[in-house]
Amino acid sequence: MAGRRRIVYQLVAPMERTLGVAEIGRRRDYLQRHAGACTETEVLSVPSGYASIESERDAVKVAPHLLAGLQKADADGANAGIIGCFSDPAIDAVRETVTMPIVGPGQSSIALALQLGDRYSVLTPLESGHKRTTPRLRAQGLVDRLASVRGIGVSVVELANEKSGAWQRILETSRRCIEEDGADVLVMGCMSMAFMDVDRELSKRLHVPVVNPVLAALKTAETLLDLGLTHSRASWPSPPEKAYFD
Amino acid sequence: MAGRRRIVYQLVAPMERTLGVAEIGRRRDYLQRHAGACTETEVLSVPSGYASIESERDAVKVAPHLLAGLQKADADGANAGIIGCFSDPAIDAVRETVTMPIVGPGQSSIALALQLGDRYSVLTPLESGHKRTTPRLRAQGLVDRLASVRGIGVSVVELANEKSGAWQRILETSRRCIEEDGADVLVMGCMSMAFMDVDRELSKRLHVPVVNPVLAALKTAETLLDLGLTHSRASWPSPPEKAYFD
Amino acid sequence: MAGRRRIVYQLVAPMERTLGVAEIGRRRDYLQRHAGACTETEVLSVPSGYASIESERDAVKVAPHLLAGLQKADADGANAGIIGCFSDPAIDAVRETVTMPIVGPGQSSIALALQLGDRYSVLTPLESGHKRTTPRLRAQGLVDRLASVRGIGVSVVELANEKSGAWQRILETSRRCIEEDGADVLVMGCMSMAFMDVDRELSKRLHVPVVNPVLAALKTAETLLDLGLTHSRASWPSPPEKAYFD
Amino acid sequence: MAGRRRIVYQLVAPMERTLGVAEIGRRRDYLQRHAGACTETEVLSVPSGYASIESERDAVKVAPHLLAGLQKADADGANAGIIGCFSDPAIDAVRETVTMPIVGPGQSSIALALQLGDRYSVLTPLESGHKRTTPRLRAQGLVDRLASVRGIGVSVVELANEKSGAWQRILETSRRCIEEDGADVLVMGCMSMAFMDVDRELSKRLHVPVVNPVLAALKTAETLLDLGLTHSRASWPSPPEKAYFD
Amino acid sequence: MAGRRRIVYQLVAPMERTLGVAEIGRRRDYLQRHAGACTETEVLSVPSGYASIESERDAVKVAPHLLAGLQKADADGANAGIIGCFSDPAIDAVRETVTMPIVGPGQSSIALALQLGDRYSVLTPLESGHKRTTPRLRAQGLVDRLASVRGIGVSVVELANEKSGAWQRILETSRRCIEEDGADVLVMGCMSMAFMDVDRELSKRLHVPVVNPVLAALKTAETLLDLGLTHSRASWPSPPEKAYFD
Amino acid sequence: MAGRRRIVYQLVAPMERTLGVAEIGRRRDYLQRHAGACTETEVLSVPSGYASIESERDAVKVAPHLLAGLQKADADGANAGIIGCFSDPAIDAVRETVTMPIVGPGQSSIALALQLGDRYSVLTPLESGHKRTTPRLRAQGLVDRLASVRGIGVSVVELANEKSGAWQRILETSRRCIEEDGADVLVMGCMSMAFMDVDRELSKRLHVPVVNPVLAALKTAETLLDLGLTHSRASWPSPPEKAYFD
Repeated sequence: MAGRRRIVYQLVAPMERTLGVAEIGRRRDYLQRHAGACTETEVLSVPSGYASIESERDAVKVAPHLLAGLQKADADGANAGIIGCFSDPAIDAVRETVTMPIVGPGQSSIALALQLGDRYSVLTPLESGHKRTTPRLRAQGLVDRLASVRGIGVSVVELANEKSGAWQRILETSRRCIEEDGADVLVMGCMSMAFMDVDRELSKRLHVPVVNPVLAALKTAETLLDLGLTHSRASWPSPPEKAYFD
Repeated sequence: MAGRRRIVYQLVAPMERTLGVAEIGRRRDYLQRHAGACTETEVLSVPSGYASIESERDAVKVAPHLLAGLQKADADGANAGIIGCFSDPAIDAVRETVTMPIVGPGQSSIALALQLGDRYSVLTPLESGHKRTTPRLRAQGLVDRLASVRGIGVSVVELANEKSGAWQRILETSRRCIEEDGADVLVMGCMSMAFMDVDRELSKRLHVPVVNPVLAALKTAETLLDLGLTHSRASWPSPPEKAYFD
Repeated sequence: MAGRRRIVYQLVAPMERTLGVAEIGRRRDYLQRHAGACTETEVLSVPSGYASIESERDAVKVAPHLLAGLQKADADGANAGIIGCFSDPAIDAVRETVTMPIVGPGQSSIALALQLGDRYSVLTPLESGHKRTTPRLRAQGLVDRLASVRGIGVSVVELANEKSGAWQRILETSRRCIEEDGADVLVMGCMSMAFMDVDRELSKRLHVPVVNPVLAALKTAETLLDLGLTHSRASWPSPPEKAYFD
Repeated sequence: MAGRRRIVYQLVAPMERTLGVAEIGRRRDYLQRHAGACTETEVLSVPSGYASIESERDAVKVAPHLLAGLQKADADGANAGIIGCFSDPAIDAVRETVTMPIVGPGQSSIALALQLGDRYSVLTPLESGHKRTTPRLRAQGLVDRLASVRGIGVSVVELANEKSGAWQRILETSRRCIEEDGADVLVMGCMSMAFMDVDRELSKRLHVPVVNPVLAALKTAETLLDLGLTHSRASWPSPPEKAYFD
Repeated sequence: MAGRRRIVYQLVAPMERTLGVAEIGRRRDYLQRHAGACTETEVLSVPSGYASIESERDAVKVAPHLLAGLQKADADGANAGIIGCFSDPAIDAVRETVTMPIVGPGQSSIALALQLGDRYSVLTPLESGHKRTTPRLRAQGLVDRLASVRGIGVSVVELANEKSGAWQRILETSRRCIEEDGADVLVMGCMSMAFMDVDRELSKRLHVPVVNPVLAALKTAETLLDLGLTHSRASWPSPPEKAYFD
Repeated sequence: MAGRRRIVYQLVAPMERTLGVAEIGRRRDYLQRHAGACTETEVLSVPSGYASIESERDAVKVAPHLLAGLQKADADGANAGIIGCFSDPAIDAVRETVTMPIVGPGQSSIALALQLGDRYSVLTPLESGHKRTTPRLRAQGLVDRLASVRGIGVSVVELANEKSGAWQRILETSRRCIEEDGADVLVMGCMSMAFMDVDRELSKRLHVPVVNPVLAALKTAETLLDLGLTHSRASWPSPPEKAYFD
């Protein structure tokens, strides 16, 4: 099939200083464990930022670093890039400026969910972050089959630390998505939730498919590489060449 | 990653009698060549049907055979099934009755296209077949970003026989999708068009991504197996048990 | 106005063997009793199938027989055909292949409901069957005013046998459609429910119009004949001529 | 089936003084000729107004008279009312205040068109009047399958007088709806166009169904009476009782 | 900036005879108090009508007077007109026939609300009047972000008389819009509710913006005058010149 | 009415170094000239960035500076902020973090356009930038009445320099929006185009309203201040307090 290829996973926080180096390693291992035989995964950090993206402010602040990180990886010969946040921050800017395929976990997860059930719900960490999701799905024309977006009331960092109680909140909120909102399939709307590695257990308990955005993104990146596909220059034209005033 | 798994590709025509056994072999080889290391592909025929699906009549006639074929494959231990037609015939019926994941090339292609550009066009064989596509996309809530559906004016069998002129028609029609309809990404709306193996050449000529539904379906099936996902019983509940009067 | 015309009502089950010949006669009488002076109604059975359509599997299995039955009726000089199931199975295939107008009770009922209130709800028999309805309405661009689809939890055969308790379930479920979902008009989403002949009583109790799909279809068929209208060949082009391999 | 019933067709112009009494008679005859055996049709005029409705101004001016005319007919024992203009003026107000079913030719025509093809176009008289149509269809949630609205460039009165050239304009504009806009079915968007009685000829020439709003409305009124249906009080609640200050 | 300009506020009831001359004066003062330095406001009554618009019947009856009143004001040199009812009655007819900008409080309020939050709810007086709102928003393509329309169960006249209990009903209903329907911003759907001058208090209590339609319309009128803008003749073409038969 | 208030207009380029200080002054004068009597306008620059925003890359790079600039202005007692780019960059992030109302010229312009005609078109500078507009309008649920987005083929800086030929391109492109796309109202989709001060002339030539986003934003800011309104905390919740790792 394809030769050896390198997929970079761009973190959205300076994780060495927030959750620590070990967590970066754990995430890299998780990715590698689920990667295909020819795939080498790499996890990139950012020089500065908040510990997580839970608001547009957080996204705006880290976005230039995501752009720089993935531009550099592209220049260094990486084969595909994954933006390590369900809200796909800076994805359009990155696509404009690199040639390797750039995968957004939010987009990949919904694309998979649409094939697994008629109506999907998205689980977000905090209630406060949940307001950012719907407009983004509207922008993509993907709300017709959205059952609901629900926050579980646990912050991203608490999820990453597998705070006691988080699993219970995920379970309860998921149940409401199914019973009250009519969801047929669930999408985990946060990478730290995904890295908890509880999606299969959740699915087993609730009898509906649960999409893990880390894995959806990884498999989509591999698929694009397998098929020789990248994003359309017609949709993301190269920016006009012009000076940056620093 | 995963162990060895068998993916069956269910043809929608009795191809031994239409395009011939060699073509079945060629298609099986094409699939296997693009499959992952752990994937074994198998191509299933049907006992009767038209040489191609180009109308709802054709779909209705072959649908019970698709259902039976994939039910048998599921019972025989296959791990995933692909319905070998872009119009995803009988997909809901099959999903209701089997537990292995069932992939529709139409659905998989659009799911991929949505990540590769803002607006997509679908290329169908005959003009006459093109009227079936839009309602199906509407049913899935996926028309907001549809640029157009255009027939190239060549029948499925002519495509399978790589009729002289077909490539030219594909090229010209694709160009109109881009220039007149505003498509950013193209989707080949026919498996025989996909098996022509011209999607990369088309993409190179027109500078937009071209989604091949055979490969989109294959990679989606592999992804679902890698991730342990299958379609939601909440969306496709098992039919009530009851007698069939033959 | 018009001369004498024959409208065939195509059953979707081999009713001689399921509900029995008497029920076929009762349904024919019901149709004739509501038919216009110049209309002769006829009820056609199918050679095989399930006792009812409650899943896509059921629809797929009986669809070729519906196609054959209505093609034969058209060839035999019938003037219009009604597909005897609210899910309008095989309607597109039949329309492609016959010239007489083909009426789908699902389509006719919604068309009437749209003129009787702002938002409509559809009552289906089993909860499990209810998932098939929304995508079909989406395909027709008719969900903007859909209040809800609710199953009453009674199977089609139980409805046909006027199982004790069915009426109460219809009444309760209808009330929830109005009070919880905001329905202004109700549509009975099942022919056996319609043949119970309780729609007027239901309407009287709940003070909203209730559309009976059997009668909506019959009156639409008569209207099309009165006005000399049939479905558009532009939407349902004749299938290309080609051999069927049996 | 049903007993004798009286359907009133409410003109939207003081036609005695505009097109003349003979034209009222001709329209009444046309209606009666297409009516069912048990139907008696009656044509009501208004005391004042413009010769036609070609703008919202025209509609606003005649609306109180339509309301009064149909309220009186209802009180006098009429069984159903048709508003004699494709734009269905005052229909909501009338429905709030009478108990007999009130039919809008615009709504009835689209309801029929939706069953005859996938996409429909509406032909309006003047270009200037055409801007009123789309918002009205949007209000009803019926634009998803609208191919186009096109004016033929002939005024209502000129149509009523069968002005030379009108037929040619209808034919040409219809052809553009089909060829340029993708219409599968045409709807005549004006009662005077409908009363020209050229819809069947147009359909024969262009090979697509053509819906005549006069007849669509008449048949819908008869259907509602046959089925004992009227509009929902939940959608059109009775106005609160209160004094009118004259 | 601009010179002195006169904005007329067209009442929809003969208020001298309903709420009384003092209330007209109070409303005029309220408008003037919120108007810009160069704005002179004027309140016009109508010769006849109901005391309020709470149904389409009420709107139809007063619409010709609104048309005449604003036509006369336009001819008399007014610079802009506001239609004094949230349902924007006769707005299209008026726009067709005058050159000064005509502002509808319903349209202006929603336009503002769309900039203040993602999802908005509309508060209407009576439950019975609430059914008129959604189709109107659909006609304008503005329902995608509509959270709900809820009636507070108090009539317009009771609101105008600041009936005891009205404030409590407003508060409770608003709370339900926020908590049950997910509204981020509230729109007062009635001018008498707006003239109660409780919008700021409501906003302070519930911590969401509350749009007052009287003030939204006034500021929009001033903006249009400041910017030299008026409604498009392409959307609201001048009616064809023709005789009115009185 | 209101007291003295300060509205800051946040530039999106380090204009001292790009177009020069004089242009900043000219823009400030333009704003002040159109401001109300009580309004003081102020133009803020950014420390670094591209000369214009013509891609998502450009937006991502300048967004943190917009955020910082408007946060500082808010802290310094400004009363309202305008983001000086039609694409409303960073608007959600700013709204999350400040209490003064933040106006996006894109949102304000469309809100006004929706009241001036049925269908609107947006004129963008370069063709390449035009792909960013539609998803943004989709996110806001405002595409139902969008006629088209068309680039005029002139860069932002060329517009700012009033490059010869720009006016002609604006005129020609606008004409196509009206004649080919059916626009009833035009929106200038670029601040530099707006500052050319040709919108009134364009409107006079083409007989449709033309919305100037600079002025739409300014008047909206004044309106929000007049009415005491600001964006909803429910839609833009304050970000969780947490450390920023620099």
